[in-house]
Amino acid sequence: MTQQTLQVALGDRSYPIHIGSGLLQRADLILPHLGRKKAVIVSNETVAPLYLEPLAALLRANGVAVSQVVLPDGEEFKDWPTLNRIFDALLESRAERSTTLIALGGGVIGDTTGFAAACYQRGMPFIQVPTTLLSQVDSSVGGKTAINHPLGKNMIGAFYQPKLVLADIDTLDTLPERELKAGLAEVIKYGLIRDPQFLGWIESSLPGLLARDKVLLAEAVYRSCAHKAEVVARDERETGERALLNLGHTFGHAIETGLGYGVWLHGEAVAAGTVMAAELSARLGWIGPAEVARVESVFRLAGLPVSGPDLGVEHYLELMRHDKKVEAGKLRLVLFRGIGDAVVSDAASDEQIAAAIAARVSAA
Amino acid sequence: MTQQTLQVALGDRSYPIHIGSGLLQRADLILPHLGRKKAVIVSNETVAPLYLEPLAALLRANGVAVSQVVLPDGEEFKDWPTLNRIFDALLESRAERSTTLIALGGGVIGDTTGFAAACYQRGMPFIQVPTTLLSQVDSSVGGKTAINHPLGKNMIGAFYQPKLVLADIDTLDTLPERELKAGLAEVIKYGLIRDPQFLGWIESSLPGLLARDKVLLAEAVYRSCAHKAEVVARDERETGERALLNLGHTFGHAIETGLGYGVWLHGEAVAAGTVMAAELSARLGWIGPAEVARVESVFRLAGLPVSGPDLGVEHYLELMRHDKKVEAGKLRLVLFRGIGDAVVSDAASDEQIAAAIAARVSAA
Repeated sequence: MTQQTLQVALGDRSYPIHIGSGLLQRADLILPHLGRKKAVIVSNETVAPLYLEPLAALLRANGVAVSQVVLPDGEEFKDWPTLNRIFDALLESRAERSTTLIALGGGVIGDTTGFAAACYQRGMPFIQVPTTLLSQVDSSVGGKTAINHPLGKNMIGAFYQPKLVLADIDTLDTLPERELKAGLAEVIKYGLIRDPQFLGWIESSLPGLLARDKVLLAEAVYRSCAHKAEVVARDERETGERALLNLGHTFGHAIETGLGYGVWLHGEAVAAGTVMAAELSARLGWIGPAEVARVESVFRLAGLPVSGPDLGVEHYLELMRHDKKVEAGKLRLVLFRGIGDAVVSDAASDEQIAAAIAARVSAA
Repeated sequence: MTQQTLQVALGDRSYPIHIGSGLLQRADLILPHLGRKKAVIVSNETVAPLYLEPLAALLRANGVAVSQVVLPDGEEFKDWPTLNRIFDALLESRAERSTTLIALGGGVIGDTTGFAAACYQRGMPFIQVPTTLLSQVDSSVGGKTAINHPLGKNMIGAFYQPKLVLADIDTLDTLPERELKAGLAEVIKYGLIRDPQFLGWIESSLPGLLARDKVLLAEAVYRSCAHKAEVVARDERETGERALLNLGHTFGHAIETGLGYGVWLHGEAVAAGTVMAAELSARLGWIGPAEVARVESVFRLAGLPVSGPDLGVEHYLELMRHDKKVEAGKLRLVLFRGIGDAVVSDAASDEQIAAAIAARVSAA
């Protein structure tokens, strides 16, 4: 398979996304982005045994001084104590402002490591090496970094762009089934928001994607990243269009925070949250039952949940009000005007939101 | 006294610095910078009883919804648990991305609050209301925000500019003598680095400044901020010239970290550190004994320490190597080519640095 490359166009902060097989062996793709030949790789206990040593060895063979930090695995560790372990390691290994931080893992590792890079000595270069489908198609691209606060997901963070994203499709070979499905939620998202043709392709390709057909996976990652790169280039700091990428996320964050971080995977929460958004859009009269059914169906095909846990409607609303998408006290949600046509809107009343949630929860 | 205004020219992130008397009563200066009429004031236990209530009342009288957070006072609280108290308060008061954070206090409050603003929901607007001489002449301007790490001062932070700096000279009336002197260290710094004429003015004005003559204090703040604004506009992220503003700071940070945060005031450590820098410059043959004596004399006139605590030379070097001014393993120090002529240099060997420190420490 050939390697494909996209560019995130952000002026002097532009960077390439390489997508393909065997990229973790490609020193030629990584070395040009390591200013000084000093790097610290951050990974987790699941990914490190699989991919850390070969990557470190490759870099060392090319004259790079490499240190490493291995963190516990899971969304519940996307917090300050874990972030501080990165800072401790950076200080102990005398990392300088010009040392490069490399995030090797899924979305949690990428978000936490990116935020560490944004803050250490007020900013050091970093590289994203996403090893999950979710991080390859979404979180590794665009510079959103963050950790969670007990009262809200991704509440503490920074917009901070990487120097390079290296998405090696081969790492998906070892991805647990449940995480593969969770990653598909974000792929489906791009189709639902802005590309009905891509949605059709996903619907027909889901059996092959679930069977880990590499040509299909590479295509899904490439087309997802192309959407993400286009949106981020136009609206890096989410003052407009980029907010559409949060389809299902305000509902989803409530699920993640309400259940406790790590109980549901992010993609699972986004799937159920997107069905809630479709339900609400239908209640506003913006789409019909056929569209809601299609949204539900594509997530079901991907093996994802299509209803949320029953946290109590009031608790959902309470959690959603803590989300970042509140302006002048009003919830701003991503809703459907049609399939492939999402909008940000504060048109729904609390009563309508509550009714949509109630219609789309089921006992845990 | 008339109010004076400077502009920090940073394109779409430009902002004004207002300097003068009675500014804390001037709603007309503050309100234009509060986008939404919602603000959270962060202060400390020392400053809050003096200035928080009047400021909050002024804003409330103008229709602004105001919450407040009062932190403990001192450099030893410039840490993660204290930062997290700001985040907790922001989440509990349902602060939005568009809510404005107001830092009311000295450098610790400004640095911590600014970093909180940089991180909360990936960035919210903030205003600096510095109430110490040190923060008025230096830390409130230029967007350096940070907290300390046990292994290094200001290690975790961000470049994040305020929307407005409001330096009310009247707040210096209540400043403890020791802090007034510490603030003068940073005023002297501008003269030593880049303005021999200003240094002469400081030398002759020190008795009046120490007696809190408001015309002289306002002039010192204005001229210091003018220097800072000029340097920051040319080199916001400290890739060059801005590093000169760190004169005495690498030695000084070693003193602060080595003694434990809060034992020496930042300005005191900078004073002793600057004498060490002068001593080292003389040992390199770059300046003569008369220049070293002048550096020592101006700090002595200001009532500041001119030698460091005896931490052991090796411990000094160890602490300095953790500072941010290390590149490719070499310490980069701000040294003197003359009075009013500072340079960043890695010319000094560890032995020379050690000898300069040894010559300028005294038993605690």
